[in-house]
Amino acid sequence: MFGLSDETLMQNADSIVPAGSVVLLGGGPGDPELITLAGLKALAVADVVLIDHLAPQELHREFGPHVEIIDVAKHPRGKAVAQSHINDLMVDRAKRGKRVVRFKGGEGFVFGRGYEEVVALQESGISVRVIPGLTSPVAVPVLAGIPITARGLLHDFTVVSGHVPPSDPSTLVNWEALAKMTGTLIFLMAVHNMSAISATLIDLGKPAETPLAIVVEGSLPSERTIRTTLGEVATVIERESVSAPAIFVIGAVAALGAA
Amino acid sequence: MFGLSDETLMQNADSIVPAGSVVLLGGGPGDPELITLAGLKALAVADVVLIDHLAPQELHREFGPHVEIIDVAKHPRGKAVAQSHINDLMVDRAKRGKRVVRFKGGEGFVFGRGYEEVVALQESGISVRVIPGLTSPVAVPVLAGIPITARGLLHDFTVVSGHVPPSDPSTLVNWEALAKMTGTLIFLMAVHNMSAISATLIDLGKPAETPLAIVVEGSLPSERTIRTTLGEVATVIERESVSAPAIFVIGAVAALGAA
Repeated sequence: MFGLSDETLMQNADSIVPAGSVVLLGGGPGDPELITLAGLKALAVADVVLIDHLAPQELHREFGPHVEIIDVAKHPRGKAVAQSHINDLMVDRAKRGKRVVRFKGGEGFVFGRGYEEVVALQESGISVRVIPGLTSPVAVPVLAGIPITARGLLHDFTVVSGHVPPSDPSTLVNWEALAKMTGTLIFLMAVHNMSAISATLIDLGKPAETPLAIVVEGSLPSERTIRTTLGEVATVIERESVSAPAIFVIGAVAALGAA
Repeated sequence: MFGLSDETLMQNADSIVPAGSVVLLGGGPGDPELITLAGLKALAVADVVLIDHLAPQELHREFGPHVEIIDVAKHPRGKAVAQSHINDLMVDRAKRGKRVVRFKGGEGFVFGRGYEEVVALQESGISVRVIPGLTSPVAVPVLAGIPITARGLLHDFTVVSGHVPPSDPSTLVNWEALAKMTGTLIFLMAVHNMSAISATLIDLGKPAETPLAIVVEGSLPSERTIRTTLGEVATVIERESVSAPAIFVIGAVAALGAA
């Protein structure tokens, strides 16, 4: 697909993914051309690839002919392969001397359990290399024409996992402080809870008319962007049948770049 | 260097960077293999590359033989090429029918003036495509073994430009809210002001013993990571002669992944 020379890659396989080690690879937001060159090389020399459902599936074409592909998709609210089982699989294959690539969507150390996997591998004496991927909360808005920052408007941005609603005692977010932040707020994994999240932010002082953009299936051919406001977002999610994966951008930048 | 087929690329040049248009390309944190495949292709077919000093310089090897390279480095606190001049150069070359790539370090829409360039190009009727890069505040800690998030510790992280100190009336950060955020705080462009920033965060309630990691020249062979605390950071910057580029990570994750 991309014309990398197979012979050169295989000659250097031990410097790319040493036999008996694991590469934790972030695959970016979905477009297969948004993987890094280092990541592409790792996939090409891998003996074993453990792949998530959000990793760019077209990159299967870049795998070697004898690769073992293990689908460890963890669908939200659905059937899941336990994290401990994934860890066991990686350790097992690495101990058998294989070149193992753990291939995820986005960036595995941003709400992606990457650190848990590093710890599990290190505790088993397996060496680990990390190849970062484009993180979706940044790359997806940028691809959709929405800047994360803009000069004169803000000096900070905050990325929040919306998988726990504000009223849940297990939330680790300081929602009062969050509502007072002046920079861009970016939510991921928030489709289900955005109604509660927007109501909470408004209650705590964020103006209901704050611009909000939703980017659904960012970077894929099916990508669509919806512009609304914090006060209207719950209605819009319902009306437009928004479903995951979606990124929510809240703040002045969400009104920029509109066609 | 990477063995992409030149003929295939040049045959598809008009779908990669159409003649008379501009690609705004993020180059990632510095390691040339951390560019995206889409970015590498754009560089290979470009007629003109406008390059910043933080863009991965080794990628010069990937440029075509007849490329015009324009160095528009804007050194911090040093001599700078005015933004308006950069915009004029891009418009001029695109209007002459060239394939233009604006090549920056990191991600151009995270404190990188990318949006200003989009607006300037669109106002001149030039079409623009954006290819995101790995953003340094996320990729650099991850490469250094510091996760941005860790399960059970936090559900959010905030990235802040430290180029304006908290006492400056032109700051756009709500420092009181920032000090109360429970997630990871990541500062960039903050070497000069970190003494004032750390004092302000502590005054506003962030514990002085909060773990802090500094990653200097992340992703490059010269990379080094220093572990300290929020209360000690000013002393450590002085003692270790920390200079830009550096990324500061503040929070529980900054104590993880230490060797």
